[in-house]
Amino acid sequence: MNKEIRIFSPGTVSNVACGFDVLGFCLDHIGDEMLVRTTPQQGISITKIEGYDLPYETEKNVAGVSALALIEDFQPGFGFEIEIYKRIKPGSGIGSSAASAAGSVFAINELLGKPYNKTQLTAFAMKGEAVSSQSEHADNLAPAIFGGFVLVKSLNPLEILNLPTPEELYAVIIHPQIEIKTLEARAILPKDIPLQKAITQWANLGSLVHALHSDDYSLLQRSLQDVVIEPYRSQLIPHFDEVKTAALKQGALGFGISGSGPSIFAITKGEDSARSVEAAMRKVYESSSLQFETYLSKINKEGIKTISK
Amino acid sequence: MNKEIRIFSPGTVSNVACGFDVLGFCLDHIGDEMLVRTTPQQGISITKIEGYDLPYETEKNVAGVSALALIEDFQPGFGFEIEIYKRIKPGSGIGSSAASAAGSVFAINELLGKPYNKTQLTAFAMKGEAVSSQSEHADNLAPAIFGGFVLVKSLNPLEILNLPTPEELYAVIIHPQIEIKTLEARAILPKDIPLQKAITQWANLGSLVHALHSDDYSLLQRSLQDVVIEPYRSQLIPHFDEVKTAALKQGALGFGISGSGPSIFAITKGEDSARSVEAAMRKVYESSSLQFETYLSKINKEGIKTISK
Repeated sequence: MNKEIRIFSPGTVSNVACGFDVLGFCLDHIGDEMLVRTTPQQGISITKIEGYDLPYETEKNVAGVSALALIEDFQPGFGFEIEIYKRIKPGSGIGSSAASAAGSVFAINELLGKPYNKTQLTAFAMKGEAVSSQSEHADNLAPAIFGGFVLVKSLNPLEILNLPTPEELYAVIIHPQIEIKTLEARAILPKDIPLQKAITQWANLGSLVHALHSDDYSLLQRSLQDVVIEPYRSQLIPHFDEVKTAALKQGALGFGISGSGPSIFAITKGEDSARSVEAAMRKVYESSSLQFETYLSKINKEGIKTISK
Repeated sequence: MNKEIRIFSPGTVSNVACGFDVLGFCLDHIGDEMLVRTTPQQGISITKIEGYDLPYETEKNVAGVSALALIEDFQPGFGFEIEIYKRIKPGSGIGSSAASAAGSVFAINELLGKPYNKTQLTAFAMKGEAVSSQSEHADNLAPAIFGGFVLVKSLNPLEILNLPTPEELYAVIIHPQIEIKTLEARAILPKDIPLQKAITQWANLGSLVHALHSDDYSLLQRSLQDVVIEPYRSQLIPHFDEVKTAALKQGALGFGISGSGPSIFAITKGEDSARSVEAAMRKVYESSSLQFETYLSKINKEGIKTISK
């Protein structure tokens, strides 16, 4: 008898100012739905994609590739078909491909009776994510799978740390409708950085982790600073400095580029603050000719959710 | 009526592998004693120095300079004389000058009825420490003043975070009798470092802070890695790699250069482990012609202590 599961796979914000390549957090109601069901025939097939134009061919679809990695390891003796209801625009910088890559392996793991832990699921999902970013990363995947704030301690061996997430943290995201390719955003970065800036960055990351453990919102604010990457990548994002200034002036705890952009995010304490920060950020873009969308979300401690099974 | 206080000012280990320039911890029974008493005449005078040959002239003595910085701010209307019973050899890399600089301001603050908090005391002590290191640092001072593990979040403004210190942490230190000047140890470092190495380092520091908060000794072990500074500075320390290998093989959680050397340290879980790591480290140096000393200490959560008042 065939089994099926419907899940919600959320978007994520990676890098998070001082945590380039190692830190991420999970968004709440912003994300894709996916339906995965067992099939008698082996293998993975993508049977439906709604929302955006993405490849149906399993080996070219991030959800397909991560699912293939899992079943190659598990060898279930049957297969799965996947329907993707895409809500996160590909290339937005809030983990669109990660949501697909993580969602399919989460769903299959549930249908198989949870043989794999979250770190193992992240490893499978990395195979899918690599299809879109050309290199293996976990800082967008792990927050979707673990929920809350995560630190990718190392990729080899893969080690993910689930950090505490203070209760009142909200994120505001503004997504200008421009395209920045992950590869280009990587190419703009220098190979070497000044040791002094690296020291500032690791002091900030260390103190951010301390702030998350201590529920210290004020220290969070002083820690969410990126002196290494932002000066380069912010050039790719129109009105970055103005939006940042507006958000911080309105009381945002921190501000930065989400993933490799073009989305930019603010973190706030509480929903009221998030709403006024959102308004301030919108105002900057409204006076330009740019198309944009904004999202407001509590930080999601749970990660991917099962909707029905 | 004159008042006096006798204090114990401990040695410290700074940098601590992945925490170059920002992390330090406090040693327990390894340190100096100082006696400070009020005098009717204003100013600071150093009236006794035992143990090592250090300048009596107030403006050239780290304890004198830090004390001057404090009384210049407080303007007590009377003065202090300082006796220093030095046990930590200057230039050993375990915070000898920091113990003096921090000790005098701690003692004077006690005699004045504690007008200053620990961060303010660290700021005064930095003025003294600068006499010996030619630049202002806090990563040796703050652990003596705050106790336990500290993160120097920033120097300007000065912000010190007291991190949790797991109960069973011990340090073993081996001090080869060679001289490494702080200035030389700084000069050997590159101005720029590879971004990839910086990312590894900040992932390690973030995960170290998480491990300290979580009492996770195993994660501590995986985090205490220095991929940035150690490859350069370890060249200045004879038999570094052999001692490191011996310590880690014997179960040390981590290993590194204390401050700018020449002392090197291991961190262990528990005193028994510390004793066998110490033996393994001694064995390496015993088969060489080097003079050396070792120290074994619980991590001191209290910092500078009042002996009598």
